[in-house]
Amino acid sequence: MNEGTVRVSLREVEEADLELLMAWRSNPLIYQHFTLQTGPLTWEEHLGWWLNRKHRKDWIVLLQGEEGVRRVGSVNASRLDEPMPEVGLYIGESTLWGKGVGRSALRQVLSKLAKDGYSRCWAGIQAANTRSQNLFESVGFRRRGSESAARLRYERDIEAPSNSSDSLRELSS
Amino acid sequence: MNEGTVRVSLREVEEADLELLMAWRSNPLIYQHFTLQTGPLTWEEHLGWWLNRKHRKDWIVLLQGEEGVRRVGSVNASRLDEPMPEVGLYIGESTLWGKGVGRSALRQVLSKLAKDGYSRCWAGIQAANTRSQNLFESVGFRRRGSESAARLRYERDIEAPSNSSDSLRELSS
Repeated sequence: MNEGTVRVSLREVEEADLELLMAWRSNPLIYQHFTLQTGPLTWEEHLGWWLNRKHRKDWIVLLQGEEGVRRVGSVNASRLDEPMPEVGLYIGESTLWGKGVGRSALRQVLSKLAKDGYSRCWAGIQAANTRSQNLFESVGFRRRGSESAARLRYERDIEAPSNSSDSLRELSS
Repeated sequence: MNEGTVRVSLREVEEADLELLMAWRSNPLIYQHFTLQTGPLTWEEHLGWWLNRKHRKDWIVLLQGEEGVRRVGSVNASRLDEPMPEVGLYIGESTLWGKGVGRSALRQVLSKLAKDGYSRCWAGIQAANTRSQNLFESVGFRRRGSESAARLRYERDIEAPSNSSDSLRELSS
């Protein structure tokens, strides 16, 4: 599978996704890359996160496979009340890592932020998470210092979309 | 939370559960206790398991919480073409371990097997998995040797149900 054949789409997270998000967020293969989490979640913690989100959108990453569409991860934009929102991503189906699914999802979030009028965004990525650093760099993010010793800061301009194909071309440059 | 306040029910697994089962089965906290699995699954492996099941039933473990019912794990009976079927269980929401959810689910599977006319069943449990050994012993399973150096064999008689309350009492003795 290469990126050209990956069919990825996004839709906003709904309550019916919460069990699956909980399962992904409670997997050490996933949460080892989260900054503040050191163990699997309780349902109360997970539900508290969901109910207390503010200035944030979460999308489910959908992958079109041979046998249908399935949910494989989640991407988000937070601090939407600030001039420079933060972008985050994880592919919950870890055996998909490295196959272009995250890159496609990330590009689609950047398009959404462009349409909403944002001109720059950032991401905080753990210093040990070179896979994620490479992913964000591959769509145009550049390192701009550190949030802390363990967490690097990446930023990227977001150009206003002219039309959708231009937007896609620009985002893949 | 103690077992008296846990409200657990079972329903048969449906296709719409497959993503969640995939997420649970791909969590090292879960699959470290599986005999044959050493890493997260690919979707093709997971789908192959689902499509090639034979003489087996899988149920979703549902937990009634304050805010609604959610899916927290899975229990199964396999080798249903043999006189002595095998029983298996995992609670995917790992922060629920030790709270009586698995015990309740296991008792309900035993009731189902009793109604279907089976008189004895067994379970294979990893030698290192003392939590699961204790769980199965707590509902009446007893060790009957080893499947291999790493996997212990537990067995249990299943008495025919007289009525549901008797059945529950008997299963908890």
